[in-house]
Amino acid sequence: MPGLFLSFEGIDGSGKSTQARRLADTLRAKGHTVTLTREPGGSPGAEEIRRLVREGATDRWSPETEILLFTAARRDHLEKTIRPALQRGEIVITDRFADSTRVFQGVTRGDLTATVDRLHDLMIGIEPDLTLLIDLDPALGLSRATARAGKELRFEDMGLAFQEKAREGFLALARAQPRFRVIDGDAKPEMVAERVWETVVARLRTA
Amino acid sequence: MPGLFLSFEGIDGSGKSTQARRLADTLRAKGHTVTLTREPGGSPGAEEIRRLVREGATDRWSPETEILLFTAARRDHLEKTIRPALQRGEIVITDRFADSTRVFQGVTRGDLTATVDRLHDLMIGIEPDLTLLIDLDPALGLSRATARAGKELRFEDMGLAFQEKAREGFLALARAQPRFRVIDGDAKPEMVAERVWETVVARLRTA
Repeated sequence: MPGLFLSFEGIDGSGKSTQARRLADTLRAKGHTVTLTREPGGSPGAEEIRRLVREGATDRWSPETEILLFTAARRDHLEKTIRPALQRGEIVITDRFADSTRVFQGVTRGDLTATVDRLHDLMIGIEPDLTLLIDLDPALGLSRATARAGKELRFEDMGLAFQEKAREGFLALARAQPRFRVIDGDAKPEMVAERVWETVVARLRTA
Repeated sequence: MPGLFLSFEGIDGSGKSTQARRLADTLRAKGHTVTLTREPGGSPGAEEIRRLVREGATDRWSPETEILLFTAARRDHLEKTIRPALQRGEIVITDRFADSTRVFQGVTRGDLTATVDRLHDLMIGIEPDLTLLIDLDPALGLSRATARAGKELRFEDMGLAFQEKAREGFLALARAQPRFRVIDGDAKPEMVAERVWETVVARLRTA
């Protein structure tokens, strides 16, 4: 496809949503057309599926059913938001994509990793051209995330041990897949944004 | 699993829902414990997913997203209704199961047949022990189905040509899979019920 597909990944509180917005602003200021989106959600249908997943008790859906619902939402997000924008030649920036499913399901249900991968290959079949992993000390991420009171929390509830495993999961993916770039998220937002920008500029030059 | 898993399949208006109920009544009268269920739906979670699929415009979800949502609903149905009943040693009768997805998606999007099968193998992985296909002249089925005004119609709207293709699809599955028994649905309900009963008794003897 003609456009460029970028994703931000990282544990909660890593600052990736802020960085995604900043990158979109910078790219637009340079004259690029950008679609900024996020998961879960990212299209009206995906948002409705997301609401269905989050309603009711935590154990309402089994991990397998939840993976299917998340994949349905991602398929809708892909068809209605991501693919049309790429086909128009835009830069698409998504705040989380399939790597989040891989990591968070991997922490809670490591035995489902192969299922998650096969389901992705069967029904989604696309990876970002470049994935920016905002890497952060989980203790700092957790204190940032819990400070945002009133915001929807889900994985944050699971605490520091969970965030540490998630961080390891993201770093393991980054080592395995060349599309990843790991950005140190401990620095000030301006510094992080600068590292992000350098990385994206390098990718744009090769695109 | 200890129980027995039976499904009814057929085009709309074939009388399969009536036959599923009659069979449940007869089995209960003989002292069997029966769970009678149906698709789409069959568990509270699956019913909610079903509502989401049916809301809004017909083209709101792509066939791929719809297949994922139906599979999520089926997974919930399996986990919450079918598998627990089978593990208690009950006879489970479902009015439609995965064969309906195979046939109806096969008619509208034949290119997705392999995807539907792979998704089923990956996330559902169970077939009925015995599938009763109530086979019927589509013209008769259609006149019966449209006579039930006020009932939710979906595939019926697609008319006779669609029903004819669906009938062919069901018969092709029945030829390919030994778990199928084809029952002539043109006869009076009492006669059809008798054929169904003979078939199930034969299966119970070998179970």
